Amino acid sequence: MYIIGELINGMYKNVARAIAERDKTFVQSLAQLQVEAGAAALDLSCGPLSRSPLDDMLWLIDVVQDSVQVSLSLDTTKLNIMEEGLKRLRKNGIINSTSADLERLEAYLPLANKYNASLIALTMDKKGVPQDKDRRLELAAFILDVAQRNGLSPSSIFLDPILMPINVAQNQLFGILEALRDFKLLSDPAPKTVVGLSNISQGAKDRRLINRTFLTMAQGFGLDSAILDPLDEALMESLIAGELILNKTIYCADFVAAYRKSKRI
Amino acid sequence: MYIIGELINGMYKNVARAIAERDKTFVQSLAQLQVEAGAAALDLSCGPLSRSPLDDMLWLIDVVQDSVQVSLSLDTTKLNIMEEGLKRLRKNGIINSTSADLERLEAYLPLANKYNASLIALTMDKKGVPQDKDRRLELAAFILDVAQRNGLSPSSIFLDPILMPINVAQNQLFGILEALRDFKLLSDPAPKTVVGLSNISQGAKDRRLINRTFLTMAQGFGLDSAILDPLDEALMESLIAGELILNKTIYCADFVAAYRKSKRI
Repeated sequence: MYIIGELINGMYKNVARAIAERDKTFVQSLAQLQVEAGAAALDLSCGPLSRSPLDDMLWLIDVVQDSVQVSLSLDTTKLNIMEEGLKRLRKNGIINSTSADLERLEAYLPLANKYNASLIALTMDKKGVPQDKDRRLELAAFILDVAQRNGLSPSSIFLDPILMPINVAQNQLFGILEALRDFKLLSDPAPKTVVGLSNISQGAKDRRLINRTFLTMAQGFGLDSAILDPLDEALMESLIAGELILNKTIYCADFVAAYRKSKRI
Repeated sequence: MYIIGELINGMYKNVARAIAERDKTFVQSLAQLQVEAGAAALDLSCGPLSRSPLDDMLWLIDVVQDSVQVSLSLDTTKLNIMEEGLKRLRKNGIINSTSADLERLEAYLPLANKYNASLIALTMDKKGVPQDKDRRLELAAFILDVAQRNGLSPSSIFLDPILMPINVAQNQLFGILEALRDFKLLSDPAPKTVVGLSNISQGAKDRRLINRTFLTMAQGFGLDSAILDPLDEALMESLIAGELILNKTIYCADFVAAYRKSKRI
């Protein structure tokens, strides 16, 4: 599982404060903790309250890159911030995100090519989020088709079926699991798949239980990557046990400790 | 999920003692606790140390039936004990178990018919436990074929792919998950599926983590039933969250408490 740490996000008050006050120590500590817990990449978002989102994003990128060596996922809806950010990266990055709308795809695909970045593509368009698996597959196929015409390999695309909150769209969740499995069949090489895990439990009780249970099921359906909180220990233990059951890490008696040790820098 | 409680088993020392000393209170309390925790059926096994296995099984059946109203799964390899036990049941029972060997099937299928019992059928034969999914499917198809010729509906059969310990056969586990899914396609009406959950973690550390992670994945692959420890609270919470994600129970804010309440007698 390719883990993208979600915690450096200005929608959290303490992160918004750290960005506003240029509190480098706080942000770097959050970066290091996530990487030590197993994150292979870190998502960076200035959040909705940022007054100077371009400056804030560039500051975040610099500060985090000075602290850890992992890939960064740039989470912004502004095309110019995305490009300025990509220019600043020292390793190949992740564009988070495009939708299946043609004009957005045609704006972001060239950026992915130019900066050797991966691209998270949400299977939604102007009509909104799909209500069923078939529509998700249709939009995924469209994304891969446009990507191919723009010269980006499917293996650089993370298809995101858009995980819906369980208290809003409980009846869609199995279709989302099936979409994760079926996305992989749409092209050769196969695209990658990703979910924003915490979406499923928005507004619910027992959020961590719902998150880790869905993640385990999604692992069974072949999920490649998730944007999640790597500091949630029970979640990480589930994830490690899931990898073990799927034979993706070798069993040993102390498998949780061994996995953690293997991820330490 | 149809939960079969596993705790009344003479392989546990305290249960062996209770059986030997005819400690009714101990056994009835174990029955009640499991049912209150969500078990829809209880497995009864006298264990390997039983000196008078027929008497012990009949005593267990009587004592448990006087205490709870659920179905009983009779776990014995002796045909005569199975039949005497089935005669004694006040509700339809479960025969645990037959293999795919023709002579065993031809002995147990008539019993299932005669006593309106369900039949747990292990996909193994004299050659041993299969090493891959295809052989499991082959044996499952054979079981269903013999069952049909003996007039037992597939819906009365619980196919058990035989869950292997993760420290012995890690590379078989995904095939076992796929077998659980594919068994359902072998007949119409579909057979039911079951696993003996704790097998997966025999001899491993972090047994409960491995058990619940596998159970969640198996739920995603359509597992109908499991023989498990319903007193393992983290396991039951995973199971409840899994049912919720699969839209098998209706979401409400207090879903764990609500599920538990709905199962109380």
